[in-house]
Amino acid sequence: MTEIEIGRSKRARPTYSLDDIAIVPSRRTRDPELVSVAWRIDAYTFDTPVLAAPMDSVVSPQTAIEIGRLGGLGVLDLDGLWTRYDDPQPMLDEIASLPAKDVTPRLQQIYAEPIREELIKQRIAEIRAGGVTVAAALSPARTAQYAKAVVDAGVDLFVIRGTTVSAEHVSADQGREPLNLKQFIYELDVPVVVGGCATYQGALHLMRTGAAGVLVGFGGGAAHTTRDVLGVRVPMASAIADVAAARRDYLDESGGRYVHVIADGGVGRSGDLPKAIACGADAVMVGSPLARAAEAPGQGYHWGIEATHPELPRGERVHLGTVGSLQQILHGPSSSPDGTMNLVGALRRAMATTGYSDLKEFQRIEIVVSGS
Amino acid sequence: MTEIEIGRSKRARPTYSLDDIAIVPSRRTRDPELVSVAWRIDAYTFDTPVLAAPMDSVVSPQTAIEIGRLGGLGVLDLDGLWTRYDDPQPMLDEIASLPAKDVTPRLQQIYAEPIREELIKQRIAEIRAGGVTVAAALSPARTAQYAKAVVDAGVDLFVIRGTTVSAEHVSADQGREPLNLKQFIYELDVPVVVGGCATYQGALHLMRTGAAGVLVGFGGGAAHTTRDVLGVRVPMASAIADVAAARRDYLDESGGRYVHVIADGGVGRSGDLPKAIACGADAVMVGSPLARAAEAPGQGYHWGIEATHPELPRGERVHLGTVGSLQQILHGPSSSPDGTMNLVGALRRAMATTGYSDLKEFQRIEIVVSGS
Amino acid sequence: MTEIEIGRSKRARPTYSLDDIAIVPSRRTRDPELVSVAWRIDAYTFDTPVLAAPMDSVVSPQTAIEIGRLGGLGVLDLDGLWTRYDDPQPMLDEIASLPAKDVTPRLQQIYAEPIREELIKQRIAEIRAGGVTVAAALSPARTAQYAKAVVDAGVDLFVIRGTTVSAEHVSADQGREPLNLKQFIYELDVPVVVGGCATYQGALHLMRTGAAGVLVGFGGGAAHTTRDVLGVRVPMASAIADVAAARRDYLDESGGRYVHVIADGGVGRSGDLPKAIACGADAVMVGSPLARAAEAPGQGYHWGIEATHPELPRGERVHLGTVGSLQQILHGPSSSPDGTMNLVGALRRAMATTGYSDLKEFQRIEIVVSGS
Amino acid sequence: MTEIEIGRSKRARPTYSLDDIAIVPSRRTRDPELVSVAWRIDAYTFDTPVLAAPMDSVVSPQTAIEIGRLGGLGVLDLDGLWTRYDDPQPMLDEIASLPAKDVTPRLQQIYAEPIREELIKQRIAEIRAGGVTVAAALSPARTAQYAKAVVDAGVDLFVIRGTTVSAEHVSADQGREPLNLKQFIYELDVPVVVGGCATYQGALHLMRTGAAGVLVGFGGGAAHTTRDVLGVRVPMASAIADVAAARRDYLDESGGRYVHVIADGGVGRSGDLPKAIACGADAVMVGSPLARAAEAPGQGYHWGIEATHPELPRGERVHLGTVGSLQQILHGPSSSPDGTMNLVGALRRAMATTGYSDLKEFQRIEIVVSGS
Repeated sequence: MTEIEIGRSKRARPTYSLDDIAIVPSRRTRDPELVSVAWRIDAYTFDTPVLAAPMDSVVSPQTAIEIGRLGGLGVLDLDGLWTRYDDPQPMLDEIASLPAKDVTPRLQQIYAEPIREELIKQRIAEIRAGGVTVAAALSPARTAQYAKAVVDAGVDLFVIRGTTVSAEHVSADQGREPLNLKQFIYELDVPVVVGGCATYQGALHLMRTGAAGVLVGFGGGAAHTTRDVLGVRVPMASAIADVAAARRDYLDESGGRYVHVIADGGVGRSGDLPKAIACGADAVMVGSPLARAAEAPGQGYHWGIEATHPELPRGERVHLGTVGSLQQILHGPSSSPDGTMNLVGALRRAMATTGYSDLKEFQRIEIVVSGS
Repeated sequence: MTEIEIGRSKRARPTYSLDDIAIVPSRRTRDPELVSVAWRIDAYTFDTPVLAAPMDSVVSPQTAIEIGRLGGLGVLDLDGLWTRYDDPQPMLDEIASLPAKDVTPRLQQIYAEPIREELIKQRIAEIRAGGVTVAAALSPARTAQYAKAVVDAGVDLFVIRGTTVSAEHVSADQGREPLNLKQFIYELDVPVVVGGCATYQGALHLMRTGAAGVLVGFGGGAAHTTRDVLGVRVPMASAIADVAAARRDYLDESGGRYVHVIADGGVGRSGDLPKAIACGADAVMVGSPLARAAEAPGQGYHWGIEATHPELPRGERVHLGTVGSLQQILHGPSSSPDGTMNLVGALRRAMATTGYSDLKEFQRIEIVVSGS
Repeated sequence: MTEIEIGRSKRARPTYSLDDIAIVPSRRTRDPELVSVAWRIDAYTFDTPVLAAPMDSVVSPQTAIEIGRLGGLGVLDLDGLWTRYDDPQPMLDEIASLPAKDVTPRLQQIYAEPIREELIKQRIAEIRAGGVTVAAALSPARTAQYAKAVVDAGVDLFVIRGTTVSAEHVSADQGREPLNLKQFIYELDVPVVVGGCATYQGALHLMRTGAAGVLVGFGGGAAHTTRDVLGVRVPMASAIADVAAARRDYLDESGGRYVHVIADGGVGRSGDLPKAIACGADAVMVGSPLARAAEAPGQGYHWGIEATHPELPRGERVHLGTVGSLQQILHGPSSSPDGTMNLVGALRRAMATTGYSDLKEFQRIEIVVSGS
Repeated sequence: MTEIEIGRSKRARPTYSLDDIAIVPSRRTRDPELVSVAWRIDAYTFDTPVLAAPMDSVVSPQTAIEIGRLGGLGVLDLDGLWTRYDDPQPMLDEIASLPAKDVTPRLQQIYAEPIREELIKQRIAEIRAGGVTVAAALSPARTAQYAKAVVDAGVDLFVIRGTTVSAEHVSADQGREPLNLKQFIYELDVPVVVGGCATYQGALHLMRTGAAGVLVGFGGGAAHTTRDVLGVRVPMASAIADVAAARRDYLDESGGRYVHVIADGGVGRSGDLPKAIACGADAVMVGSPLARAAEAPGQGYHWGIEATHPELPRGERVHLGTVGSLQQILHGPSSSPDGTMNLVGALRRAMATTGYSDLKEFQRIEIVVSGS
């Protein structure tokens, strides 16, 4: 591991974002029709390696169903509007119409409404009725309290998602035991995806909890300001490549458990999908690309749960606009040459152009550091 | 080959664009009149090492003739408007007048018109009638189908050009054999220039097909968005220097076949020509500089065939404006100090300022990495 | 120490700013309530490691008291308006209302007014009456003249602050002995904080004078133009890490004297606080974040004493606007996700997210070079 | 010498501009009054190491005198307006009033007027009458023709200045011998300053011609576009450090001839002066800073002779505005904290802040690579 000297008493590793790298065509090419972008985790198979991030601007029960039908996986945020309001539509409408200066205080108010357990059950039932794989997310702080309700309601994949999730959390609350991830996952009947993590060590410890997949990220998507507010950042290309190394080493250590690596954050244009896979990801969780869908609950706006924190908001409502249907954004045809449409087609073509036929193989593609 | 660690499981090579480098004056200087910029490929000799890219905004039969008379080589795109329409002028006029938001869908429609074999023959005959060397390009997918027509029509140099062209293509089409480049070139009566390629290995394999020249590029010119859409990029300075190494090694391996290296993409200002040669190019294929000509079919607008893809467009129509005649852009006099005019004069002066007298020698000039 | 070659006769060390680096979450997490950000220097203990910079736009006697009550330390500039005018308010009002082009000449006039010793005593008494720790700053050139008055007036911490302060100053003034820092500090009854310094050697020499703390900086905050005017710059991350190495080595050399390292300049967003600590700082001195307070004397504007130099001003009046009360800026709650509010909460959360419980331990956190 | 691989067949040296570096305060400080910025070349002594570049926007006979009286050296361009027109004032007025689009063609016309030998003599006499050291510049192409007239007219320092000047020029003109620099300088009765050069080898060869000083540059000042047009660039910090190494090695080789290194181009703000000295320069030749003077012939506009080339202009007329008198720009007092005023005062203070007392010693100051 290369390190450079910041000053006489501190060293640091150079790290790279997806913008810093690019894929290099190799000597073989292939027709896109001969490329498979299928992804399988636990018992669930998907036509595309795309998860919709649990953000209220992206995933509602309705869009979770639609994304599932299109071959992806929509993850509903159970910390969000859908479990706080019987009908979140007026809130979504209001958020989309607020003047910029009023957004943060109003988001803080709107998300101060308590979560209701019966709405958790209802939302999961709604997605299940759509006939697709059901995935839902809770923050680590709420996982212990609501996990049983979530599983009872029939979730297929359980996602525990926070800015940074560790296998060892030290809690101040004497009356409430902190979540013991290892025991929790062991006792749960459904596969768990957990994150964010951003380092080899952090990922390895999460893998040892028995998770089926880990989210690589630190709260660094298009609508986040974690870097400015907390000073925390791990550029995505380096984070994925580190966590993929943990997957490899844990595969050996565990005698064959393959824990999926899911890039979460910073995948904004179609070209970022093949780059994330090239760094070692098995799948990608995207927010902003799907927030540009005509069906998106955010109506062209995009924000994450971090933007609603009552004491220390670390996200903004960003305006992305609308470019087409979920169908067009995922599978085309594209009428916009800026990487906002036909994400899966672009991934397929990037793999074809470089001669690869499946995602696992494509993780070995040569990349370059290509400047800005 | 230096590599850096992106993360624990992935390494990458640092690469450089033409903007990252600069030419360094050495200890000798020379009068520009004593500099030769002549270029010879196969039996054809040119006063200047400049090829006009097969793009409808740049090369029509008329501008191919004019560019030939000015000492360069205009390459007509046989996948473009001139083989789809008896009279492309109304289409060119319309493209130049479309509002920005309508461009991509309308380009997709205009280029959906089928290619007609008799128009291929007619266009080549038109250029041939102009008394200049005749060069025309097909995409790899169409080469097998139309090559005979092209050769029969009397092309001098045959160009097979795509974003990425490999010596080994795996095709999905059971009924249609993929193009066997080696056999195809062997059987063809005219010299073939083929590309894009962007790596040592990719270039070496293309050279082994018997090509007279290879195009260095990946679909990365001024009007392309390959990087955003596919995540594919190979900065031009590094790509040229890699492919030039393949030329040297293939020269040895083949016992003396010198395959020309033609930089294709990213040569936007006159200063980029000497830089490309300095990295090892024998000649450059330019688009945007010639799209600024008063005679250019694009009327100040510029786009490539990638912008017209029906499912996944990877290019834009960009507005460049018009700065002068083809004569002025290639040979001056310049009245604009921004590198848009007198491209050949600038190349000549860059060589004079650094004391070199011909292009082959100039490939050895010292360069520096000079920041932005 | 890595060095790179600028040219054949000159080498230079690569250096890094706080913007170049980021904090990396490690494998443990912690509730923010379990994090201590307390700081102790000499006999004085503070709830937060935040000093308000001695700048007239930030610290008045009133804000010094308020900042002290909020757990920080406000340092009054005794070279500024408060010791030149009985009532500086009209000057502050005027500075906040000047058109941009008139600012520098008028600042030069306003600060040409002489310093009055009785006002030094009066201002210190005003702060002391507020019941908080009293800190005040003089420039090195004025320290010898006014130090006795300052100490007599009852200052708790004496700050000697200039763009660059060295332990060995060569003075032109034959009639006036230059300040002998070592003797001065030895004879003084109160602890001294002195700086700016920006290198290992410079800091080590300052530490040997007996200072309780050193300021790391070179006159490089938001309102400074030292880099353009003097060509002097030492990026803050590298400067802190170098000076922290001097602290460690001096601790050994002195047999146990721990000299505090205080980052001064370039700490603009809440995320910069944890970064500065991560590089080795014990505390941070901030200007611009507090100049955004409703109570700030600058009324949304910010400038430093360097901006007032009669011959060679090296600073500007910058407009920052107002975001909230001192309480909100230091402790929240924040309603702005851009790092301008809840600085201490953000530091606490950054430490919690990475599993650290106190500042000294947090100096060991892993950082990365993360590009821009 | 560190080199990096651009691609498999090409290596390049990383280079640095003055913007990339910064000066580091060391452990000693000093009063500015104790700093000497005097410079001596051949028999001529100057209070400041500042030469005004031979550009019509900066140096007229009148400003040459004024700059001389202020302790610097104004170099008149004998290829410029003052030797082509009896009264250049109407031309200067017109250039300052032209719309941007008309500038280049009109400059080409204005400078097409022939040079008149009697005007050379007249202009030199005018400066001489002012009682200051007389310096004038010719391009290499015109040096042989007019040198005698220049020397006869009583020039003190003869400057041969071009974008790139080499000791060995290969000329196309059979009827006209190219300038043999070594013989020319040997036979001349006055000291010669010659350049630009930008490399160790180029500088060493120029030093061997007997020059008293060399100009370090490549035509890269504020008004130049050499990089875009020719692709030629050598960032100034690296160029100075390379040429300073040639000075050192030539000093040894020649048994004690000290050839002065004068940075020419890219010195735009006062902070660039100490940086240039820190890299090894003995003096700096500046254009744009003095073009901002109220007395400047350019009236707030700035252009170089390269902008007037009839075939391949490589420069622009840039608008800089006016900030104060020559006195204020060189010696202050400054009322503008952006590095445009009190250049010499800033140099003096940069040296004082870092504890140096003369220019030669200051060449050893520590510098850092400090990012952008």
